[in-house]
Amino acid sequence: MAKATGLWLVGARGSVATTAITGLLALRANLVEPVGCVTARPELAHELFPGWTELVVGGHDIAHQPLAKRAEQLADAGVLPHRIVPAIADDLRAVSAEIRHGYHPAEAHEPAAAAIDRMAADIARFQHSHDLEQVVVVNVSSTEAPFPELPEHDDLAALDAALRDPARTVLPPSSVAAYAAVRAGCAYVEFTPSLGIRVPALRALAERSGLPYAGADGKTGETLLRTALAPMFTERALRVRSWAGTNLLGGGDGATLADAEQVRGKLASKGRGLAALLGEEVTAPLHIDNVPELGEQKTAWDHVSVEGFLGTQLTLQFTWNGYDSALAAPLILDLTRLVTAARRAGERGALGALGFFFKDPLGSTEHRLAEQARELADWIGGLHAEGAQG
Amino acid sequence: MAKATGLWLVGARGSVATTAITGLLALRANLVEPVGCVTARPELAHELFPGWTELVVGGHDIAHQPLAKRAEQLADAGVLPHRIVPAIADDLRAVSAEIRHGYHPAEAHEPAAAAIDRMAADIARFQHSHDLEQVVVVNVSSTEAPFPELPEHDDLAALDAALRDPARTVLPPSSVAAYAAVRAGCAYVEFTPSLGIRVPALRALAERSGLPYAGADGKTGETLLRTALAPMFTERALRVRSWAGTNLLGGGDGATLADAEQVRGKLASKGRGLAALLGEEVTAPLHIDNVPELGEQKTAWDHVSVEGFLGTQLTLQFTWNGYDSALAAPLILDLTRLVTAARRAGERGALGALGFFFKDPLGSTEHRLAEQARELADWIGGLHAEGAQG
Amino acid sequence: MAKATGLWLVGARGSVATTAITGLLALRANLVEPVGCVTARPELAHELFPGWTELVVGGHDIAHQPLAKRAEQLADAGVLPHRIVPAIADDLRAVSAEIRHGYHPAEAHEPAAAAIDRMAADIARFQHSHDLEQVVVVNVSSTEAPFPELPEHDDLAALDAALRDPARTVLPPSSVAAYAAVRAGCAYVEFTPSLGIRVPALRALAERSGLPYAGADGKTGETLLRTALAPMFTERALRVRSWAGTNLLGGGDGATLADAEQVRGKLASKGRGLAALLGEEVTAPLHIDNVPELGEQKTAWDHVSVEGFLGTQLTLQFTWNGYDSALAAPLILDLTRLVTAARRAGERGALGALGFFFKDPLGSTEHRLAEQARELADWIGGLHAEGAQG
Amino acid sequence: MAKATGLWLVGARGSVATTAITGLLALRANLVEPVGCVTARPELAHELFPGWTELVVGGHDIAHQPLAKRAEQLADAGVLPHRIVPAIADDLRAVSAEIRHGYHPAEAHEPAAAAIDRMAADIARFQHSHDLEQVVVVNVSSTEAPFPELPEHDDLAALDAALRDPARTVLPPSSVAAYAAVRAGCAYVEFTPSLGIRVPALRALAERSGLPYAGADGKTGETLLRTALAPMFTERALRVRSWAGTNLLGGGDGATLADAEQVRGKLASKGRGLAALLGEEVTAPLHIDNVPELGEQKTAWDHVSVEGFLGTQLTLQFTWNGYDSALAAPLILDLTRLVTAARRAGERGALGALGFFFKDPLGSTEHRLAEQARELADWIGGLHAEGAQG
Ligand SMILES: NC(=O)c1ccc[n+]([C@@H]2O[C@H](COP(=O)([O-])OP(=O)(O)OC[C@H]3O[C@@H](n4cnc5c(N)ncnc54)[C@H](O)[C@@H]3O)[C@@H](O)[C@H]2O)c1
Ligand SMILES: NC(=O)c1ccc[n+]([C@@H]2O[C@H](COP(=O)([O-])OP(=O)(O)OC[C@H]3O[C@@H](n4cnc5c(N)ncnc54)[C@H](O)[C@@H]3O)[C@@H](O)[C@H]2O)c1
Ligand SMILES: NC(=O)c1ccc[n+]([C@@H]2O[C@H](COP(=O)([O-])OP(=O)(O)OC[C@H]3O[C@@H](n4cnc5c(N)ncnc54)[C@H](O)[C@@H]3O)[C@@H](O)[C@H]2O)c1
Ligand SMILES: NC(=O)c1ccc[n+]([C@@H]2O[C@H](COP(=O)([O-])OP(=O)(O)OC[C@H]3O[C@@H](n4cnc5c(N)ncnc54)[C@H](O)[C@@H]3O)[C@@H](O)[C@H]2O)c1
Ligand code: NA
Ligand code: NA
Repeated sequence: MAKATGLWLVGARGSVATTAITGLLALRANLVEPVGCVTARPELAHELFPGWTELVVGGHDIAHQPLAKRAEQLADAGVLPHRIVPAIADDLRAVSAEIRHGYHPAEAHEPAAAAIDRMAADIARFQHSHDLEQVVVVNVSSTEAPFPELPEHDDLAALDAALRDPARTVLPPSSVAAYAAVRAGCAYVEFTPSLGIRVPALRALAERSGLPYAGADGKTGETLLRTALAPMFTERALRVRSWAGTNLLGGGDGATLADAEQVRGKLASKGRGLAALLGEEVTAPLHIDNVPELGEQKTAWDHVSVEGFLGTQLTLQFTWNGYDSALAAPLILDLTRLVTAARRAGERGALGALGFFFKDPLGSTEHRLAEQARELADWIGGLHAEGAQG
Repeated sequence: MAKATGLWLVGARGSVATTAITGLLALRANLVEPVGCVTARPELAHELFPGWTELVVGGHDIAHQPLAKRAEQLADAGVLPHRIVPAIADDLRAVSAEIRHGYHPAEAHEPAAAAIDRMAADIARFQHSHDLEQVVVVNVSSTEAPFPELPEHDDLAALDAALRDPARTVLPPSSVAAYAAVRAGCAYVEFTPSLGIRVPALRALAERSGLPYAGADGKTGETLLRTALAPMFTERALRVRSWAGTNLLGGGDGATLADAEQVRGKLASKGRGLAALLGEEVTAPLHIDNVPELGEQKTAWDHVSVEGFLGTQLTLQFTWNGYDSALAAPLILDLTRLVTAARRAGERGALGALGFFFKDPLGSTEHRLAEQARELADWIGGLHAEGAQG
Repeated sequence: MAKATGLWLVGARGSVATTAITGLLALRANLVEPVGCVTARPELAHELFPGWTELVVGGHDIAHQPLAKRAEQLADAGVLPHRIVPAIADDLRAVSAEIRHGYHPAEAHEPAAAAIDRMAADIARFQHSHDLEQVVVVNVSSTEAPFPELPEHDDLAALDAALRDPARTVLPPSSVAAYAAVRAGCAYVEFTPSLGIRVPALRALAERSGLPYAGADGKTGETLLRTALAPMFTERALRVRSWAGTNLLGGGDGATLADAEQVRGKLASKGRGLAALLGEEVTAPLHIDNVPELGEQKTAWDHVSVEGFLGTQLTLQFTWNGYDSALAAPLILDLTRLVTAARRAGERGALGALGFFFKDPLGSTEHRLAEQARELADWIGGLHAEGAQG
Repeated sequence: MAKATGLWLVGARGSVATTAITGLLALRANLVEPVGCVTARPELAHELFPGWTELVVGGHDIAHQPLAKRAEQLADAGVLPHRIVPAIADDLRAVSAEIRHGYHPAEAHEPAAAAIDRMAADIARFQHSHDLEQVVVVNVSSTEAPFPELPEHDDLAALDAALRDPARTVLPPSSVAAYAAVRAGCAYVEFTPSLGIRVPALRALAERSGLPYAGADGKTGETLLRTALAPMFTERALRVRSWAGTNLLGGGDGATLADAEQVRGKLASKGRGLAALLGEEVTAPLHIDNVPELGEQKTAWDHVSVEGFLGTQLTLQFTWNGYDSALAAPLILDLTRLVTAARRAGERGALGALGFFFKDPLGSTEHRLAEQARELADWIGGLHAEGAQG
């Protein structure tokens, strides 16, 4: 029988992580159907995907709330069905016990280099103790403020030296986590808009180490819709004149993004996509507002003004309402299965074919959702276990 | 130099026809850019497409209002820019002079067979007098009530006999027009939800006569959006639970569709697509309301309720507002160019690759907009003038 | 100490009733705040209102599902907080035991006259056994199809004779219930669009018997908004040209209203109000669609097209989403308190000042919400216990 | 016969002013009906209101574009009907000739005191040359950035001294205009969120001079709706939890408000009202985005999250779309008529009864639209020509 795969979540006690973990445990216990899991579509089935029972979860976080407690809060907020949490309580406790303390510069008593060593060791220990074939590290921790490009980012030796200097902070926590992942010989998925593995020296190291990675910033709401709709205008030769958006969200992510610094990262990854989709810059004011009263819900309103035949005006408005974490969580499971399969098939470097899942796809310039879906299906169709073909 | 192509509009004095004609004349006079014309996208350019100056327009209608008058009304209603109508007044008058009286059972003093002969002759005379390479007939007349299937529809001889019987009405006006088109050796485009060429004996005759045809029911509003959005849910393994829609429209089409009989045809072609897109029937109440106060505007509201991960609810609402005829008109020009090219390339029968333009595509079961766009592009890429390759 | 008041619900096992009962029990147990209860606003406090602990509930229904079971379903559907139902389980069982079998012509083994006697006796027994000062009967049973006006409706003797004829059905169940209420000496509230007490002979009898009554059709959603918004247009001298609406709802009420017959009653009470508000008939297509997938939620979309200065167009769209029963339930408690107070103050006949709560107010032609709020406040301010003043 | 009244517009060449002037001229010529004019409602008719033919217009602006040119642009943008502008071209030219150069610190070659003298003289000359009974000054110039409170604002002598100092700018242009108005013995209306007459020393001076004034910031869009809707929640004892808003607008006002400084003034006057309406502060993120592509249109989206019975969530969303200046212009005519009548009736100081027209009403704390409508009607009902009663 195949060895199990590890899923190592950075930010493992957050909403997205808790929802993904609860969902995995519920799927394993046959309590729910895999609605929202792309890799569960019969059309995309593949033998290299690990089954729900073949995934073991651990992670890092800097918070210490037990997963079961977070799960209960999410049930009260409407994200998780009330009946599920008690049914998987034991499994939740087991996962909670696999979560180690992460790294944050605000509380760091160690240079980043030491944190990387420590965290890589955490992952290695996890892999060893569960006898895992491989571990996939997925970052779902709080969005960070945009981080400046530094010369050290282009050169691994210089980076290593700077990381050893306790007086400097040359990488944000997401990139520290990405480095720890690569150090531990793991594939890495950047689900947030943070820098993560997008440091040239780290990307090169992953590639050299034969490791695949994917990202960045899960595409689950407004941007998902934009990448489904914008091609419609282009294909119909209609000219988008403006595309305004407002996002209202509560939850942990709402609080983080309310901080003007952090939100810039999110807005930037959203903006890049729209211009790429429309082939030109358009007036596109965009807001993310923290509305704690909405709890775990997210509501997005978009207003699109379009020029049609003979200069006539068309207007499209949409409102999208959902539970943010429930949109993201199944993608975490999908990405884990896909990246596991990619590595089994010997893929390395940026997995552009996974752009379907991201606002800011690494290794691809394609933003059109339907094209991404096709690329994903083609890529899955072409996966073969390494050595299996010869 | 290439001979010109004829565009023969059934319903030539209606809103869609008048907007298409005005637009063509304005494009020819370089007064506007071809926004909304799919065949004008540089990516899709093809030498077999006739240029704007290579199209000559005529048609049938049972109304007699001069085109210039209708164009002025459309300008007052906001569909056409005020500056354009006077600039092309002479050309409009010339087209208006090419419109012949059509056929309607309510006023028919002739058996349908005679009407078919008369209308085919109108088209032939038009082709001859302008020395046209070919004529494309496009039906943009008022939507008809659903028409029953009759045994005569399957057998041309029986159909011909029945058409000669002045006591019977075995074909609706759209199918009489389609028959006249085929009789005159013309390709036919069904832009409305009416029966038109979808009579088995007529389809077979067109095929035998080496004539291409396309349809049915131009996809310009709510359905356009649905075919862009529904695949997003499927591809993300999300489960659409209900999809409700309300359409408000004024204009001639609003008045026609307010009649409960006629609207059934339109609702049927809309419904078929949704089930095909989602792979199953969902609760999908749909309304078309006549709101004369909206003039030529159409507003559609859709409410989609979706089941996501762990049974959570997602809700999408959209409102689409535009000038109906301005959405349809450029497609009339596109279809004329595409069907002209198809015939030049020797295509015959249903042009499934034009499904991109239709709610109820003939010759195709594909409803996903992005797939249709790709099929269209591939098909255009593969067109070669007949005999050109050998 | 004051004697308690009885609340007798017709349709006592339905969604609205169960939510009202659960809410009352939760208020009594101090588990929730009286959000949504108009009579709990400090500005409107009045000594003649019975307290939450001074209300005893019973009722009629033709279904037999225990209230606790219905309450659990409503909790799963999101209408009731999960924590409340177990906390009041005993009280719910006690109320459930006070519900008697009602009357429905489809299952009636008795002439309507006998049913009226039986049901009046049920209420009297309830009043006696709990030593209640008075009982208020509130109809929250399923909406009925519009009922024809009959000559017997104008004359009590003729009505009584016809009711004794087992071969005839001269009153719908709601009016049978209203008659039973009046017979038992109770005030009556018509919360549905059904005929209920709106039979001239019954209204006269209530008046003669010194009984107050109120109705009809609780105003909780789209109409509530319309009566808040329409005056804005009038006061600003703006001219509403069209007002279209679509209502999507699941739940028991959705299923009932999907039946074309029943819905006519509801649409009629909605339509009357709009014309009254705007001072003229406008194009106002209106739909109620049953979407079972929405569960207990109701979503309404309204599109209002308005003519402004110099003929410019204004457009207002709104979407209203809520849990239907949670909107209605607090009004049931309010109406019970208000009607109790009215009777204590010696009011009889139609209580026009309660028009604030109804789509189709009895005893008033005022539909503007703000005016109704003011009339309500003035009326409450003027209430004095009968005899108290002299 | 009654003497005519003067309307002196500050910002007389802007969109609002041009629309108001065009509308007045069209009303005078019987080309349009007074839709949108509150004072034209038969219920509010009053003999002290000047007729359309009894108003003469002049003004200040710092731009010099002829009114006829601006009117044509507004017709192209859909604000004015195309047929009207040519029909009143001569009258427009006449008004345009009555517009004098205003005051702006950026171009001022004079101390503010001199500007006040000059502008007061402009108004006096205008009054004299047209033999006007009185002149009403209405500020519709560009919104200014919030202006700091200064000690000089409380004391007229200190203010006058500071205004004579060419090195200081102690009043923004709107207040310079207000001072000029009072100096010229005119009533003043502040239609913008700028400081205007809201300088304590100026308010006191107006009062002492027996002059009425009104303001501030015309209520024409999102806020109009909020003040119609918020009372609905309060009256129904529902608890608003959040009220988010996004405004998209092009036009001159869009460009001005895009400047972060200016927008603060507007957002402040909007925010004050909401808290007053709901009785408490709620989460209420608010944005104004400049979208030049929308031309003269304004679109507002509001999302209101409300707590109902038993903690259930209600959600209201609305979208409001209109031509901003067409919403404002009739109010300018109304305010001119009302303030004229107020002065004829001997009113002085802040006209709180005109709060109906303003986001930030001077002389009133009432924000509820329906209450304001009632106060306005009562106030009009109580107006009598000064001395007429004695
Ligand atoms: N639909 C979606 O929810 C969605 C879509 C795209 C991206 N994302 C991203 O996913 C991330 C998680 O979202 P969420 O809603 O779960 O947020 P959350 O606030 O609920 O959870 C974030 C978790 O990260 C932890 N954390 C913070 N800093 C850390 C560090 N340095 N090391 C380890 N853990 C750390 C926090 O303690 C918390 O448990 C965010 O960055 C968000 O932008 C979410
Ligand atoms: N976006 C769109 O506008 C759109 C999209 C899809 C389909 N359509 C279809 O296009 C058609 C035209 O729409 P429209 O808005 O121009 O309507 P319209 O009412 O303005 O025009 C219809 C024209 O057809 C003419 N006509 C009616 N019966 C005829 C007959 N028997 N023979 C010849 N002419 C006849 C009428 O006189 C009129 O001039 C409708 O069937 C509509 O459903 C329109
Ligand atoms: N916001 C609102 O929910 C709202 C607003 C206005 C009016 N109403 C009206 O309130 C009523 C109840 O709505 P609901 O959602 O609770 O519906 P429901 O279907 O959940 O409940 C109706 C109840 O009435 C019972 N019933 C049916 N016929 C009866 C009879 N002849 N005698 C006694 N009981 C009978 C049914 O068994 C059921 O228990 C409906 O008429 C609805 O139109 C509701
Ligand atoms: N619905 C509405 O349009 C609405 C509602 C409330 C308030 N307002 C306010 O009305 C004002 C006018 O709006 P608009 O759309 O006409 O703007 P606009 O930009 O079209 O016009 C403003 C005019 O003011 C002139 N101006 C600028 N500074 C001046 C000065 N110091 N002295 C004299 N004139 C000056 C400009 O030259 C311009 O002609 C704005 O302050 C706006 O906020 C408008
Ligand atoms: Na919702
Ligand atoms: Na619009």
